[in-house]
Amino acid sequence: MPTADPIGLRLAQNIRGVTADTVSAKARTRAVIGIVDTIGVMLAGSREECVRILLETPGIGEAPGPAVLVGHAKRASLLDAALINGVAAHALDYDDFSTTLGVHYSATLVAPLLALAEAEGKTGADLIAAYVAGMETEIRLARAVGWQHYDKGWHPTSTMGTIGVAAACGHMMGLGETALATALGIAASQSAGMKANFGTMTKPLHVGIAARAGLLSALLARRGFTANRTAFEHRQGFFELYSGPGNYDVDVLLAAWGAPWELETDGQALKLWPCCGSTHAAIVAALDLREAETITVEQIARIQAMPHRRRLRHTDTPHPRTSLEGKFSVQYVVARALADGAVTLADFAPARVTEPRIVRLLDLLEAKGHPDMDDDADSQWAAEVVVDTVDGRRLACRIDNVLANGRLMPDHPAALNGKFMDCAKGVLPQDRLAPLFQSLQAIDQAPDLGAIGRLLLAPREAAEATAAEAVTA
Amino acid sequence: MPTADPIGLRLAQNIRGVTADTVSAKARTRAVIGIVDTIGVMLAGSREECVRILLETPGIGEAPGPAVLVGHAKRASLLDAALINGVAAHALDYDDFSTTLGVHYSATLVAPLLALAEAEGKTGADLIAAYVAGMETEIRLARAVGWQHYDKGWHPTSTMGTIGVAAACGHMMGLGETALATALGIAASQSAGMKANFGTMTKPLHVGIAARAGLLSALLARRGFTANRTAFEHRQGFFELYSGPGNYDVDVLLAAWGAPWELETDGQALKLWPCCGSTHAAIVAALDLREAETITVEQIARIQAMPHRRRLRHTDTPHPRTSLEGKFSVQYVVARALADGAVTLADFAPARVTEPRIVRLLDLLEAKGHPDMDDDADSQWAAEVVVDTVDGRRLACRIDNVLANGRLMPDHPAALNGKFMDCAKGVLPQDRLAPLFQSLQAIDQAPDLGAIGRLLLAPREAAEATAAEAVTA
Repeated sequence: MPTADPIGLRLAQNIRGVTADTVSAKARTRAVIGIVDTIGVMLAGSREECVRILLETPGIGEAPGPAVLVGHAKRASLLDAALINGVAAHALDYDDFSTTLGVHYSATLVAPLLALAEAEGKTGADLIAAYVAGMETEIRLARAVGWQHYDKGWHPTSTMGTIGVAAACGHMMGLGETALATALGIAASQSAGMKANFGTMTKPLHVGIAARAGLLSALLARRGFTANRTAFEHRQGFFELYSGPGNYDVDVLLAAWGAPWELETDGQALKLWPCCGSTHAAIVAALDLREAETITVEQIARIQAMPHRRRLRHTDTPHPRTSLEGKFSVQYVVARALADGAVTLADFAPARVTEPRIVRLLDLLEAKGHPDMDDDADSQWAAEVVVDTVDGRRLACRIDNVLANGRLMPDHPAALNGKFMDCAKGVLPQDRLAPLFQSLQAIDQAPDLGAIGRLLLAPREAAEATAAEAVTA
Repeated sequence: MPTADPIGLRLAQNIRGVTADTVSAKARTRAVIGIVDTIGVMLAGSREECVRILLETPGIGEAPGPAVLVGHAKRASLLDAALINGVAAHALDYDDFSTTLGVHYSATLVAPLLALAEAEGKTGADLIAAYVAGMETEIRLARAVGWQHYDKGWHPTSTMGTIGVAAACGHMMGLGETALATALGIAASQSAGMKANFGTMTKPLHVGIAARAGLLSALLARRGFTANRTAFEHRQGFFELYSGPGNYDVDVLLAAWGAPWELETDGQALKLWPCCGSTHAAIVAALDLREAETITVEQIARIQAMPHRRRLRHTDTPHPRTSLEGKFSVQYVVARALADGAVTLADFAPARVTEPRIVRLLDLLEAKGHPDMDDDADSQWAAEVVVDTVDGRRLACRIDNVLANGRLMPDHPAALNGKFMDCAKGVLPQDRLAPLFQSLQAIDQAPDLGAIGRLLLAPREAAEATAAEAVTA
């Protein structure tokens, strides 16, 4: 009996099999939606403090190169663009994600692929195929290891993202099977990111580092760098090390690619609120409850916020003080949704997070894992909010699956117009926004990506003015 | 009762407590030895293919900056120098290491510290204190998690190195307690490196990436980047994630720093042979046996190479074909030592690794973990070699602890002269080697490191000639 090829080589074969012909129309549309949404949040994120600090760090963004630093008036090396734009994409935690281990696949993939596509003269169709290959790799890997990987404390966006970016970039470069498998093996040795750092600038840093590391892996493999052929199944390799014996299923990673594509399933969500995706079901419950019952803040005596317990572990922040803590506080977003009937970008300014009217509600609020939702329940994107009123009523709203019925996933990129414009305004000149959004909606048909790249560069004067404002703000 | 400070903050306090006054004379001498030895192997490693590929990769080594790329005629950013010189330091696997989890602390520390010291006008005394702080951090962390961390498949040189480099660089920058703790937390989120990639170019890549990541963490923390205060003890933080519940001892990390310094113990070794340190006890056994018994290749009927089983797991390569495979083959180095009475840099050329005279010996050789050496034996740096001769004799030599009696650690840097000259010749002009070695021996007293840095730059013409030779070779 012949020995099976190593996992890395079989994965490389699957990745190389992703082409414009094999990607379905639905997967292509979802890819365009993911790319457009990510570019929007990347523009908004380009003004965040974590990106500003990165850009001030000597040696970051200073290697000459053709790659656009999105929202800035500057180009740099592909590796710098992957790092900086990758951090920007996740800086606001407003980017799309998969329900499989909460992987933010687009945040890791878009920055390095845009840079590489522009530098090497690739088309929109090339971009879509590489994105689908990377997305499929990340989510298949995540499904292969399951929730135990997440529960241990890994940040799957970066652990899986590093490898998925190597897959996507290697696909776009047209690496052969062996070189692509090597890229995956180099990438696996750079997988990292701890959930302990959620709620700090290090969380978006994970994304930029994963993007840079995955791209670097493909660049090195292209030139003959070496890694172990059995880096995935080795007893001291990726699966045993990051998940452990018995905690992974290689068939889930490798079997029946594209049947269906992960992008065709109900497993992705855009973010309608700029905070941790694990709080979204609770936000919907709070908004629905408020709308159905028309309660006011004064009527509230007690609040219970009960997300699925997996969603609570990293969003349990009873008294947030900073913007980032607010984004990882299910308590804050539920209080804000009950008080205002909305949760907006502006609501995460520190002064808003500590607003006395909301702090008073936080004192009445208890968050706990929902007692009736098992760890391994079918939907882990569920929550219930219960409000007791001062006049003795008990009001409740339970959301069993916030992802059902397309509530968080539109059918067409045009539906992103409002969010995109909110994100891009103030970063790019106003008169450029409509043509840019128009181009992005058809990015899958772009003959080359240089024109779109140029539209993502801030004009030099505008960028300087904005930077000056940020300093004096 | 007051809550104890977080681990990261207490570690930062310890790191900041390392000063020229608290470092003993013995630790200072060991630090000088480690730095001199590392610069030597970095020079030799600067000509290796893994470094050549890195330097050809767009965006690597191209950010302008003051840092010397050792052995090249080029300066670049601090981050580039940390990456490239870090890879060079470990490219030949000829650099020193600790017996605690086999951590190659100098390879991770020297590149970023030299770059930072030169850029910021630090003295040799500053360099020594920062190196001691970083070394202590890496080895204390390694002792705190113990061999289970290694056995799982982590490459402790990079997992601990990333954090140790952040400690050392943060120390040299004079970061305050809080910023230094933040640097450690950012670094912990970048810890990676799988032993599955031993024997490939990705192993030295781990070192460069750890060096760059640790330096980046300190640079970011200096500018106000954030990480979790409890990144080490968090239930989804460094200790739980990389080692697991019950598998670490925080007191070992934090208690009684400098009493004694790790550098004062018998736990370090220089490498006398340019191959994996885990093969060294077996090489000594083979050399001693050959010398005592004066056997010739023709007399050998059967060979048993029996290292401590922890040493064998990543050095079990019965039939190496490449230079790197040879370096991770206890079979090859034992056969070579028995055949020639020496193991030299030249012996790892592919043609030497597959030399028919040696391959014949490999066919007679069986490697296995020693049956009488427990997993948790006091010394894990042990091996026995047994040779049966064609005339029926059985000859054996057992080394219980290759590190005993200073066999692998001299008392003074002058003893490194031979190895250093072998490493540096052909990379730097011959007439510069003696003055350079002279300066390096007194690096702890250097008023600034600019003069030494200049001596490590290759002259432009020489560098180009060497590069041209490498291409045509």
